[in-house]
Amino acid sequence: MAASPLLERLMAALRCLPGVGPKSSQRMALHLLERDRDGAHRLVESLQSALDRIGRCQRCRDLSETELCALCANPHRNPTLLCVIETPADVLAVEQATGFQGLYFVLMGHLSPLDGIGPVELGLDMLEARLDEGEIREIILATNPTVEGEATAYYIAEMARERGIRPTRIAHGVPLGGELEYVDGGTLAHAFAGRRDL
Amino acid sequence: MAASPLLERLMAALRCLPGVGPKSSQRMALHLLERDRDGAHRLVESLQSALDRIGRCQRCRDLSETELCALCANPHRNPTLLCVIETPADVLAVEQATGFQGLYFVLMGHLSPLDGIGPVELGLDMLEARLDEGEIREIILATNPTVEGEATAYYIAEMARERGIRPTRIAHGVPLGGELEYVDGGTLAHAFAGRRDL
Ligand SMILES: [Zn+2]
Ligand SMILES: [Zn+2]
Repeated sequence: MAASPLLERLMAALRCLPGVGPKSSQRMALHLLERDRDGAHRLVESLQSALDRIGRCQRCRDLSETELCALCANPHRNPTLLCVIETPADVLAVEQATGFQGLYFVLMGHLSPLDGIGPVELGLDMLEARLDEGEIREIILATNPTVEGEATAYYIAEMARERGIRPTRIAHGVPLGGELEYVDGGTLAHAFAGRRDL
Repeated sequence: MAASPLLERLMAALRCLPGVGPKSSQRMALHLLERDRDGAHRLVESLQSALDRIGRCQRCRDLSETELCALCANPHRNPTLLCVIETPADVLAVEQATGFQGLYFVLMGHLSPLDGIGPVELGLDMLEARLDEGEIREIILATNPTVEGEATAYYIAEMARERGIRPTRIAHGVPLGGELEYVDGGTLAHAFAGRRDL
């Protein structure tokens, strides 16, 4: 291999991107340096800004550059409906595919005791405090239909029931074992419409 | 779409990477921000360094962070053999796949009058000066087997002949219409071994 050390280092760094192996990291590095230095500068600048300024929404835990994300700050959303979901990508998928008009709570994962991920790591203390505010009437459990996602949904359903809040689960239609983020919009919309009490 | 403006900007910037569309730019952005901020910082740092410090080798025009690239500065390479090639990726492919021990001259493209790419843009004045130094005995034309690549090879072969230097063309074996960078190593090694006078 004859590449310059800095080029090698860039190729290695690009491999942190999902789906990028040795061959495509080389293509990407050479493309940026030979053909699109403007694009490369924009990438540096926007990634640095995102790292510096994107944190978590104080209310729903979604990625946000402001203390309250745009969804939580939107007075036109229905505050009586709360959708509990695993990741920011899932929020984007639901927003794009369904007519859901409520608010979200983003777990950033699911219960997974073996990995040390329990209620605290998922912010369930924050969620409890929110349920205690008394405004929420229905909590839609939109965790993934995996073993861990189901266990998480049941755990949160119990929290809701204790407070007289109706827990619902999105309908089957999301393929079992699948990940919400990759489901087609129609299926996801159907699953939302067909949610049932849990 | 509910993503924060900075997240949207990052997704847009990632689409400058070859092969990255809307869906994978979203996956990449969320992966970097949620799961691999260390990797993201390394990517910013290595891309910025590469942009600041990688330029062109003064002798062969390949990408290099030093005035002379490692290949041109290597006293063990055979200075009587010069391989003329279109891109830095092609140099890497030849180095990885063949036993070639000579030096390179990287055109950074091919003759393409309609796009305003003529002899000057390809550094053929530099190449002429280099041929005039008198050290080179054979010039291996390893441009792509496309119409423009062939035309470029013939143009440079003529420059070589005028100076009594033997021009050769890598053998067929590289699929016609294909791009050198994507050819498997065996085929490329075969094409080098079977090069013929032009
Ligand atoms: Zn929020
Ligand atoms: Zn060089």
